[in-house]
Amino acid sequence: MMVIGIDPGLARLGYGVIRAERGTAVPLCYGCLETRAGARPGERLLEISRGLASLFERYPPDALAVEKLFFSKNVTSAMGVSEVRGIVLLAAEERGIPVTEYTPNQVKQAVTGSGRADKAQVQQMITRLLRLHEVPQPDDAADALSIALCHIHVMR
Amino acid sequence: MMVIGIDPGLARLGYGVIRAERGTAVPLCYGCLETRAGARPGERLLEISRGLASLFERYPPDALAVEKLFFSKNVTSAMGVSEVRGIVLLAAEERGIPVTEYTPNQVKQAVTGSGRADKAQVQQMITRLLRLHEVPQPDDAADALSIALCHIHVMR
Repeated sequence: MMVIGIDPGLARLGYGVIRAERGTAVPLCYGCLETRAGARPGERLLEISRGLASLFERYPPDALAVEKLFFSKNVTSAMGVSEVRGIVLLAAEERGIPVTEYTPNQVKQAVTGSGRADKAQVQQMITRLLRLHEVPQPDDAADALSIALCHIHVMR
Repeated sequence: MMVIGIDPGLARLGYGVIRAERGTAVPLCYGCLETRAGARPGERLLEISRGLASLFERYPPDALAVEKLFFSKNVTSAMGVSEVRGIVLLAAEERGIPVTEYTPNQVKQAVTGSGRADKAQVQQMITRLLRLHEVPQPDDAADALSIALCHIHVMR
């Protein structure tokens, strides 16, 4: 089963592709789609939409896991992230890819066993579980790998 | 110039198409795209995306005007609306349709001359300006026509 995890964002969208096979999780690819701060919102959303299309073509996923926002201190930023979430959900639906949404606490719980783990603990854990030599960079890509790994653990 | 106004929403997206010619504004079409409450978010976004595609095909707009949210008391609902806004901005960008965003106050100001007009005053005014026999229904369609009319007034 190939799972893509997505940490949505307008400036930087993190993605992580993991193949789950016989009890192990193998990272295939991770990184960020970045968009220019000076570009119009529509341009940035179109860049993201095209980036996702190309990602889904290279790594046709069996499932997509995405972070769910419940609330935010910064409503303006939450609305920007939600616009990107809309693009992600649409891109998956157009290709018949099933989507599961996880809150940050669910991700921490699934990956470290504690919903109150901090970012560094989550990053150390995914580095170990995915047998990587160092903590994946940037943070958005590490977050996306955590979300994908969360989905794999929940599915098992 | 053909302008489409959009009042974004997940359950109901209002649209209004107006042709501006020689100082008059002629309403061509208005209504709502509705999605089922029981459907998955991705399904609803895909329905909206397809509805917009068909609308843009029937009425190829020269410009699209959409409501801008600055903040909201209900953050969960604001995030749902933002997901739909993302789909609208993407659909326009994919077709090279220029988008302008207006706040509710800008729309009231442009249509009635007062940023503090109430909903009924705005509806009466667009009914008169568009020479309609009755107030457009439902409210989402009336709001979309107001946004389109606002854009036409600002452009003049």
